[in-house]
Formats: sequence, structure tokens, C-alpha cells
Amino acid sequence: MKIALAQLDYHIGNFEGNLQKMLAMVGRAKSLGADIICFGELATCGYPPRDFLEFDDFIRRCNASVDALKAASADIGIVVGSPSRNPELEGKDLHNSAYFLYQGEIRGIQHKALLPTYDIFDEYRYFEPARAFQTVEFKGKKVALSVCEDIWNVGNENPLYTICPLDEMMPDNPDFILNISASPFDYAHAALRIHTARANVKRYKIPLFYANHVGAQTDIIFDGGCLVLSPDGMVFDEMPYFEECLRVYDLEEVLQGGRSAEQPKEKVKLIHDALVVGIRDYFRKLGFQKAILGLSGGIDSAVTAVLAAEALGPGQVRVVLMPSQYSSGHSVEDARQLAESLGLQYDILPIQPMYTAFETSLQEIFAGMPFNVTEENIQARIRGTLLMAMSNKFGHILLNTTNKSEMAVGYGTLYGDMCGGIAVLGDVYKTEVYALARYLNTLPLGKSGSMGVIPIHTIQKPPSAELRPGQKDTDSLPEYELLDQVLYQYIECRQGPRELVRMGFGEDLVVRILRLVNMNEFKREQAAPVLRVSAKGFGMGRRIPIVGKYLS
Amino acid sequence: MKIALAQLDYHIGNFEGNLQKMLAMVGRAKSLGADIICFGELATCGYPPRDFLEFDDFIRRCNASVDALKAASADIGIVVGSPSRNPELEGKDLHNSAYFLYQGEIRGIQHKALLPTYDIFDEYRYFEPARAFQTVEFKGKKVALSVCEDIWNVGNENPLYTICPLDEMMPDNPDFILNISASPFDYAHAALRIHTARANVKRYKIPLFYANHVGAQTDIIFDGGCLVLSPDGMVFDEMPYFEECLRVYDLEEVLQGGRSAEQPKEKVKLIHDALVVGIRDYFRKLGFQKAILGLSGGIDSAVTAVLAAEALGPGQVRVVLMPSQYSSGHSVEDARQLAESLGLQYDILPIQPMYTAFETSLQEIFAGMPFNVTEENIQARIRGTLLMAMSNKFGHILLNTTNKSEMAVGYGTLYGDMCGGIAVLGDVYKTEVYALARYLNTLPLGKSGSMGVIPIHTIQKPPSAELRPGQKDTDSLPEYELLDQVLYQYIECRQGPRELVRMGFGEDLVVRILRLVNMNEFKREQAAPVLRVSAKGFGMGRRIPIVGKYLS
Repeated sequence: MKIALAQLDYHIGNFEGNLQKMLAMVGRAKSLGADIICFGELATCGYPPRDFLEFDDFIRRCNASVDALKAASADIGIVVGSPSRNPELEGKDLHNSAYFLYQGEIRGIQHKALLPTYDIFDEYRYFEPARAFQTVEFKGKKVALSVCEDIWNVGNENPLYTICPLDEMMPDNPDFILNISASPFDYAHAALRIHTARANVKRYKIPLFYANHVGAQTDIIFDGGCLVLSPDGMVFDEMPYFEECLRVYDLEEVLQGGRSAEQPKEKVKLIHDALVVGIRDYFRKLGFQKAILGLSGGIDSAVTAVLAAEALGPGQVRVVLMPSQYSSGHSVEDARQLAESLGLQYDILPIQPMYTAFETSLQEIFAGMPFNVTEENIQARIRGTLLMAMSNKFGHILLNTTNKSEMAVGYGTLYGDMCGGIAVLGDVYKTEVYALARYLNTLPLGKSGSMGVIPIHTIQKPPSAELRPGQKDTDSLPEYELLDQVLYQYIECRQGPRELVRMGFGEDLVVRILRLVNMNEFKREQAAPVLRVSAKGFGMGRRIPIVGKYLS
Repeated sequence: MKIALAQLDYHIGNFEGNLQKMLAMVGRAKSLGADIICFGELATCGYPPRDFLEFDDFIRRCNASVDALKAASADIGIVVGSPSRNPELEGKDLHNSAYFLYQGEIRGIQHKALLPTYDIFDEYRYFEPARAFQTVEFKGKKVALSVCEDIWNVGNENPLYTICPLDEMMPDNPDFILNISASPFDYAHAALRIHTARANVKRYKIPLFYANHVGAQTDIIFDGGCLVLSPDGMVFDEMPYFEECLRVYDLEEVLQGGRSAEQPKEKVKLIHDALVVGIRDYFRKLGFQKAILGLSGGIDSAVTAVLAAEALGPGQVRVVLMPSQYSSGHSVEDARQLAESLGLQYDILPIQPMYTAFETSLQEIFAGMPFNVTEENIQARIRGTLLMAMSNKFGHILLNTTNKSEMAVGYGTLYGDMCGGIAVLGDVYKTEVYALARYLNTLPLGKSGSMGVIPIHTIQKPPSAELRPGQKDTDSLPEYELLDQVLYQYIECRQGPRELVRMGFGEDLVVRILRLVNMNEFKREQAAPVLRVSAKGFGMGRRIPIVGKYLS
């Protein structure tokens, strides 16, 4: 028996696009002799569809796609994820289901039992969990069909859940497991996924075929990494990350095992590749071609510009240098050098005329009050307004360049440098931005294929917002090396003040940092969506009350 | 037996504040001879605590508050909501629990079984549902203790759920029901709440005592409306909305019934009162006193200014008139008249100098391109920058004045008129804003106690953004009377295109409006939090993918 896994970039709500893509893959899989082809979880509508699921019309369209695939299943089994209506009056209206289609019929349907409702997930908001489990018969084999999370509670070892769906199916003696997933990327996730897949295979001693999504849906990125595991626990195949892929596997060969074909997992490269896909899909799925961003000569905008050039092509990225009276001369030079070596169109728009106009206008009202963060913010907001004006006039999307450390402690101006359609580095700590810059400088990204596009000075100089004379980030923040460690423990690991002090961080430092994080929730509430590359990014995955007085 | 209900304004994460408030009420209730006092759901930490619940430290502090209340329960039963740890390894780490404290001990603890996970609610994200139910014995009576949603599935008639907690308790023959809630306001909710309470009382033939929160937590507003229902199904008492309250009820009197004491429920007044509380609590809980906002002469900013003056006092509201070359003379006059009759400090800052500076700066880049929405947005963003500068310099919070109709169709400038800490009218359709204005004009809000503070011209003139010569909203939008109907059906009632056409709305109109709503999700993602007054406001209660291609 031959089993095809399709690793596809679905688009939420784009029913026709998703269907045509799947039908094309059905054709290819048939031509390659496949008996079954597997698509991803909720592949008809894309993942996560969120509250679109509350519209009957949306579900009707999902069902229409299932019908179209059913019609294409005359001589190939098609496994596809789609919402299905819960026929029971009691409980939520929908199930999150895996359909097994063959010969124009629904041969089996298995609902998801374990509904993730943490981090970015809200599945209990929409779906009723499965209460019944049974395998699907196909060409003399029994298939244990499952949806995503249902393989993540191996033998009930995951404390979140109280049931292990595959344990329930084992009395049927299935021949292999098919899992259709929409499992979002973070830089540690692929290793965890293999660990979990292996735990299933070791427990059940049958092969596992795992089909995932690839591509980005606004903030949420899927890396693909479709998996085939042999009963010996070895990774028979792992598809390349961040690209669409179709491969056909011979069940007999998979059963034999003895083959190890894992993808390399290097953190900086994974983050890099994820961000490139995140940018590219944001533009493609919204129907935009060109990006615009402000280039300051600092490292965040430099890294963002390089990533955008990779994602969209240098001809599709326009940058603007907007020096103020506080900008150092080398900043403009560094920015210009980067634009030129990447081959980006750039403009230089000094902000002094606008700044003077605001200063004059507010002179009387601000009489006698000293220069403070107000004037710094005015500069940042003039830049935001210039960039948005060009964005509006030319139909480009503004890329936001704020990093995760800044976003965490509120070191940025709302409606100023926090403007943008998508925050490219919003889930990348400052120290990781440096690692990304060094990595980018090993790639041949220069106009002439040269390496080292980011000027060394941009990487080496002390970080500064350049909004007042001689300003450095460390004037108001701890060193990033230390700050990022505390932030990581607090945000990713949910360690509280007591635990942080016990880890050896100074109490004053901890109190100060946690207070900054919590009192700046109002800024993050209005921030651009953040490309998620860690296990805990800002946005839907982290829900904190604004008026909360906790640690603030 | 005497039962006290406390209707309190808790503050998320403000453990000390919440505890002191509850202890003071315990003292008062004792002095009034109460045997039991009931606080709200998750009263120790405030509602909704969201991801703060993921921090051990946060739970420790909740437990410390329960301990402090326990110590105060020597001669009064105290019912209080707080998260409790789930001792089982399996399932979520926490329960959402009602504690019954008496004589320094936990006499009973009932976990919540029905965990709302729709609209603004995410309870399944944190809590494991109750599997066991039992009444609490107290002074010879049996108390059916329950948390919020657990009385909302009367006899299992609510299709969302599969269990009816009170049915499970009835074999114990309880004497009365105590329900502790955190049930957010919308303008139709109080009537629904009474309907539900009555259904319980009719089914079980015992009194119901219902304790709710009052006050606002950022976007989410609680109206209070604590209830006592007699077995005859009559409302023995309903506490006044939008204020703290403590009342003591004699169980014997409640059992007798025959008393009807409902609060009046007039939609416009309810919305008005909710918005005033929403503004007031946003400032108070963040520790700010003064508001600033732009006053255009239009109806949205006029209504927002009046509400702010009511909430904070006219001396705490500063307004800025920022005319452009496209502003009509009467607009400035209308704005000035409103500021003067309310007694608000106002400044006039024409935006022309900044606009000219931007125009000149961008002249070369925009050469040959016509005036369009870009230049309109520049004007709006100059105003945003001026207002934020004053907000920063003086430590005032900027109030956003966007209404729900505009927010729905994206008729507003991101980082321009969409700036602000809280969107006061973001859940109020334009047609409802007019109703609010007419209502406000019946109140004696003028400096001298006069009525009619909003100039009649502001109410009567056709709505315009005044960003180009002679502009009217209806140049690019349908009439608000029609627009708001379609929006209401789509947003509040989740009617899809097919259903809307079937209702009689024109197909072109429906397609156009739904497309506007869906393609502007990116703007709402970065909008200020919206004071929620309807059953479906923008924000956490409505989760729509940005890159979704559905109906866009």
C-alpha cells in the first residue's frame, strides 16, 4: 500500500484556493500510484479559522469542499480535515473531524477528542470532543485515524487530558496511524514533535504517518515537517521545513524501518526561515507585493530589511531613512550602505521640518516644561506618519521592526515605531536579533552575491533609539544579555518573582523588569501582529488584562 | 437566617485591595446580623484574570486571600470565589471554585462545571470542570452552592452543555441556591439573567441568591444587578446597576415571596451608565485622573466628551480642537460651544503647519500623484500625534471616539483617529450614538445644571470626517440606518450573506458591507480596547483571522 502525505500552505477562508490545491495533489498522488493521500487538519478552510466557524455559511463552504474531494476519491483514499456538524443537540455545534473519503463515499470520520485550549489555541470554543473511536477499513488494512493533539497524550501521560484516543482504538488492531495536524512552528517544536511521534510508535508498534500544514496565517507559522515513523521508532522520513511537498511512501518499506531521515534543526536557521515564510505569506495572502520600512542604521531594522528582501525580493522592498537632529552621522551611512548592498530603493526624509512644526504648535501649551519622552515620541510618530503615508500612497505594507525585548518592556512608541502591518521581530529577543544578523551575514545576499550585507558597525555599536543626544538603550534598560534571560523565564517559562529570585536574579532587577512588562500591556494590545517563532509569543497566545494590577 | 449579598467592584490582580474591600463588607454584614455573606466569582483576584492564572505566584496570592477570609469567618459564613488547585494529575491544573468558609474552616467547596468558552470567555483554557456536586450544611440548612454559568443550563436545556449541576444537587434537598457570578453586562443581559434565574427557581422551588461583580475591567463591564428570587418566581430584589451595594435578606421573607423589585431596563440609559462606569474604572484602576480627547464638532467626540465629563468630572477632561483647511467654520464653533457649556479646558491647535511640513517633505516622492486617502490620513495622524504629545506631557489618557459602525467598516485612520487608551463608543453603532446624544441632552450636565449640552447642529448635520472639501460619510458608506442593520445582523447575530439577502437586504449592499468588515480586520487588531456594551463587541469576544480571505 502506498500512502501520500501532502504538506500544503492552506489559506484561511480561501475555499476555492485550498480545494484546487488539494485536487491538484490528488492528481499527482494518483499518478505516483498512491492508494491514500493525506491533507492537514481543517484543510478545507485553513487553520485557525477562529470565529468564522460561528457562521453557518462558512461551514456550508467547508462541506462543499469535502463533497468536491469526495467526488475525486473514485480510485484513491483521501484523508482531509474539516469541521463537521455535531448531530447531538447537547454540546458544541461542531466537531473537528478527519474524513476518510473513498469511491465517492465517506468511509470513516473520526472527530478530535483532545481540544487544545492553551497558548494560541481556542478549540473548545468551537468544538465538541469525540467520545467514540474506531478505525477505518481500507483495502484490507485498518487505519487509526486521528487529528493533531490526539497523539499528544500518549498513554495518558499529558496532564492536560484525561483520555488517550489511540489507546481506545487499539482493540481494533490497526495497521498504522494516520494523523492530520495543524501544529504551529516554534523553534523547539520540530524536535518535540518527533519525540511525541516516537512515543506513539514505541507504544503501539505500528507506523505513524503525520501530515502537517506549512506556511503562515498572519502571526501563526507552520513549518510542515511531515513525518513517517517506522515501528522501530526511527524517523523514516521528515519532509523539509517551510516548503510545500508531496511524497509517497510504501507501507512495506516503512514497516521494515532502519532508515533515519531527520531534517537538521538549528535554532537560528529555523527562526530565519520561519520569518521569511511569515513575511512572504502575509503579503501573498493579503494580495500585496511590496513592503516599506524605516531604516535607522540600527540592527532591528537592518535585519528586518534583509529578511524582507529575501521574502519578497529586493525589488519589492522600499526603505526610508528618516534622520533627526539626534541621529548620528554613521547611522545614516550604515543604513544607506545596507540599502545599496541589498539593492533596495531608498529615500532620505529628514524629520526636522515636521518636528519643528509640532514644536512650534505645542510651544505655548508646553511652555516651561522640559524636553522628555514626549518629544522623543513626537519624533517616532513623525516617522510612523511618513511611512504610513508612503504605505497608503503606493499600496505597500509597512513592516514593523520592534524586537521582543522592546515589546516586552514597552521600549517603543505607540503609533510611532510600533506602526506596521506585521511585527517581523516581535517574537525575537534582542540577543537573538544579533544572532540572526550574524547568520544573515553568512548568506550571499548582497546584490552581487556577496556576504556580510549588514554593516559591521550596525552589529557592533551599542543599541540606541537616537531620540535625544547620546542616548543608549542601557540608560533606561538593563543590559540585553541579562534582560532577555529574565524575560525568557517570565514569558516563556511563566516563572514568578519568587522563582526568579531563587534562580539568582537580583530582586530589584526582577521587580523592575516584571513591572515594565505588566504596565506596558496597553501598548502590546495595540501592537501589530507578531510572527510567532517561540513557544510563547505576544498576541493571541498570551492574554493579559490591561488594568490588571498584578506585579505592576 | 440572614443572607448578605455584596456587589463589589473588584480589581484584577489587586489582591490587597480586593481583600480589604471584602473584609470591610464582612464587618458591615456582621453588624447587620447576617449569617452568610456572598462575594463574586474569582473575587480574590478579579475577573477575568486570564493568563495570570498560569503563574503559581498568582494562585498563591489567591490562596492567601482565601486564608485571610477564612480567619475572618469565626461567626459568619463567607462565600467567595477563587481559583483552587486541581489535586488530580489529569486535567487542567485549576478549578474555578466557590468556597464556603465558616469558623475558620473550609466548610464546603464547589467547583464550576460549566466553563464558558465563547465570546470573551476562555475558561476551558485554565479550569478543569467539576465532576462532583454536593450541598453545604450550614446552621441546619442545606445550601446549593454554584458558580455563575452553572445555573445557565436549566435542566440541560442549553445546547452548549451536557450536564445540569443543580439537577445533580437536588437529591440532597437543598433549602436555597447561592450563585456567585462574574457575568458581564450587555444592554440585554439583565433581562436574560432574570429569565434564567426564574427558570431555576421554577424548576427547583427554592430561593435563589445571586451575587455578581460590578465595575469595569478594561473592556469588560459588570453591571451588578445582584438578585434574590422567591420560590414563587418573583424577583424579591434586584440591586441597582453600576454601583457597589451590600444588602441583607431574611430567608423567611424571601420564602414568602410576593414581592417584585426589578430595576428599570432602558437600553439607552443602560448603555450610558455602562460607558460612564467603563471610563471611570479604566482611569481609576490604572491610577490616572485626567482624560484628553480631540473635539471635532461631530457627534462621536461630543458624546465621548460628555460621558468623560460625567465619569471623571469636567475639571478632569481636556479637549483639543484641531481644525484643518477642510473643517467647516461651524464645526469649530460647535466644539467650542460644547467645551464651554460643559466647562472643559480646551485648546485650539490648527494642523495646517504640520500638514504643510509633511506635504513639502513628501512632495518629491509623491510628485504627480493626486490627493487621495493618503492626505486624509496624514491629517488624522497629525491630530493623533498632537493628542498623544499632550497625553504624554501631562499624563492624561487619550480617549478614542470611534463608533462601532466606523470600526466595523474601517472608516477611520489607524494611528490617527484610532489612537487612544480606550474606545468609549467602539461598541455603539452610529445610530445608537445619536440616541445617546439625545439622551444626554435630557440630563442637566451644563455648567449651570442646564440641559441640552450637545449643540443641536452637532446632532443634526450630516456626518463628515472633514478631511477633504465637502466630504460626507455617505460618499463612501451606505446610510447609517441601513448600514447599522446589516452590521448588527452580521456581527451580533452571525448571519451570513445568504441569510442577509433572504432578510431583504440587497445582495450588492451585503457583499460590499461584509467585504468592508472582513478586509478591515487588520485595523481592529491594532485598535484600542472597546468598552463592551453589546452581546458582541470588537476585541477578545470576536476573533477573526487577519489574512482570512472569507467574504473579503
